[in-house]
Amino acid sequence: MYNLYNLNKQGDNMDNHKKKLSIKDIAAISGVSIATVSRVLNNKGGYSKETEEKINALAKSYGYVSNMNAKSLRESKSQTIGLIVPDISNDFFATLALHIENYSAKHNYSVFICNSANNVQKEKDYFKSLASKCVDGIICISGLNKLTEDIIYNDIPIVCIDRYPENNKTIPRISSDDIHAAFLATEHLIKKGCRDIVFISSFTADYEKKERYLGYKKALDTYGIPLDKNYILQTQGKEPSQIEAEILITDFLKTQRRIDGIFASSDLAALGALYALKRANLKVPEQVKLIGFDNTLYSRLPTPSISTIERNPKMLAEKGCEVLLNMIQGKDIGSIDTIVPVVLVERESSK
Amino acid sequence: MYNLYNLNKQGDNMDNHKKKLSIKDIAAISGVSIATVSRVLNNKGGYSKETEEKINALAKSYGYVSNMNAKSLRESKSQTIGLIVPDISNDFFATLALHIENYSAKHNYSVFICNSANNVQKEKDYFKSLASKCVDGIICISGLNKLTEDIIYNDIPIVCIDRYPENNKTIPRISSDDIHAAFLATEHLIKKGCRDIVFISSFTADYEKKERYLGYKKALDTYGIPLDKNYILQTQGKEPSQIEAEILITDFLKTQRRIDGIFASSDLAALGALYALKRANLKVPEQVKLIGFDNTLYSRLPTPSISTIERNPKMLAEKGCEVLLNMIQGKDIGSIDTIVPVVLVERESSK
Repeated sequence: MYNLYNLNKQGDNMDNHKKKLSIKDIAAISGVSIATVSRVLNNKGGYSKETEEKINALAKSYGYVSNMNAKSLRESKSQTIGLIVPDISNDFFATLALHIENYSAKHNYSVFICNSANNVQKEKDYFKSLASKCVDGIICISGLNKLTEDIIYNDIPIVCIDRYPENNKTIPRISSDDIHAAFLATEHLIKKGCRDIVFISSFTADYEKKERYLGYKKALDTYGIPLDKNYILQTQGKEPSQIEAEILITDFLKTQRRIDGIFASSDLAALGALYALKRANLKVPEQVKLIGFDNTLYSRLPTPSISTIERNPKMLAEKGCEVLLNMIQGKDIGSIDTIVPVVLVERESSK
Repeated sequence: MYNLYNLNKQGDNMDNHKKKLSIKDIAAISGVSIATVSRVLNNKGGYSKETEEKINALAKSYGYVSNMNAKSLRESKSQTIGLIVPDISNDFFATLALHIENYSAKHNYSVFICNSANNVQKEKDYFKSLASKCVDGIICISGLNKLTEDIIYNDIPIVCIDRYPENNKTIPRISSDDIHAAFLATEHLIKKGCRDIVFISSFTADYEKKERYLGYKKALDTYGIPLDKNYILQTQGKEPSQIEAEILITDFLKTQRRIDGIFASSDLAALGALYALKRANLKVPEQVKLIGFDNTLYSRLPTPSISTIERNPKMLAEKGCEVLLNMIQGKDIGSIDTIVPVVLVERESSK
């Protein structure tokens, strides 16, 4: 016989914050079978209205929640996906996250967003944490060049957006056409009359940034402008910060080298460059033209507003989700590589 | 006797994406006890170096991950907390999330960020989803006025940042001093000579926004300026958007009412107001002075830069985490209500 006294005794052995009624408890109290309780709580039908109401009232008053952990252990389906981003306070990544959440919600998936803070160890920890929580798949907008074996051995579907796992060619990747993007940006400055174009990028040997360098180089080649290594400025960090870019340009101006254009591989870096130029009393766009990358608030809000490359975060996000959900459902994903087109956004800084 | 054939047969019954080796499997293959395997995988000591290496190599090559779901069912401890935010693409919330992640990581907690998109149903779903994943606690930066019983009945520790569950006085709340913040903002405009001050706020009967109204009113009262309801402009949405604020101010200017100051209850609304004033050829700050709220990119980046109220997201985040971790660990949390001070940030728009 089951009574509240037994229930409380059992409760004493459990963690205070997690005291929950099991299906067995509810069945015992209500006097129906465990199978019936389970059917009611999962809306499976095959029981009376009266039974349904009784079970639901009981479950509610005793704080029963269907324990997805136990469920996901059995069914290996949790309707959740994990999203790893390098910096959630960066407007571009936040916008991507928002679109991923929207798309997933429409397909009945919850999204757990994890901020890796551009920290390789943290990123690995989040992979493990998500895997152990039995998410159905992971979207990684990664700072990692390598996705090491101990991350991918879990057999959880993984999709990468915009960053490439260098040593792994089996993980689907959704990315912007970065070479073309950098070509477009540099060509735009050249067409506006620039010849001495500084390129600001990050220091690390990151695949993506290398593509932007290739695009910059290609545009110079196409228009017969010799590449001068002194015009390639690299920040120390993974992403050029505003202040790093400001210092780089300030130092460059001291060298007295000619400059009439700047292509920065992030809007944040472009903003830093703009501040450096303003401080040196150089007029933008009259004396130096400027273009950034990502079409974020950093390029949209300043005066002059900064021309930029729009990477289409909505399409990147939706394509990423689509491929991941196809993988989760065992469907064909088509190509392993999806390239999302970019567009040039002309603003005041390159008029 | 355990062999690979049995292992594969067992594997056939499992979901393809979740095929994992159990501790029992590893014990059987390596010829040591289950207890030893468990000790090795949890770094508990009490085994030879040789055993350690063998078990770890086996675990790695067969893709074993410690299943935190199974663990958390037993131990009710997952070292993860959930964070619900209304809009991750809003700079203020993203910054809060970043600080919460930083603080939690230092205390060995992972954070799963969930974007509720200001949608009440989504917010409820995320509460359930996090609870069923056995997170140890939840921080809620909520769009909900009410945290209904079916959300809080789980007995999972919950802390609210900046939004108040109206019908529940037991959930700890970390919040800014909103009445004082609005008082400071309005008083600043008055001290700069403004008398006809428009207040832009959101439409809904949201507790927080009401506080800002009270602060605005208090400042007018203090300086003997009569309150005119025509000067209170309310947007339709939960948060005044940039374009909504722009339309509100444009419409207000058509009424030919005198205006020499605007206090907007978000930086985004202040930015919209700035654009409306620019389009009407009204000079900021010479003809109309302007102040926003939150000290985000929306106030920092435009020209003129917009004065604002700084809400100290770092302190809000860290206080919220501190209280939650104390609750999780069964420690005393001190006061149920923590008020974080605000500061006035003077910029060009109110010079």
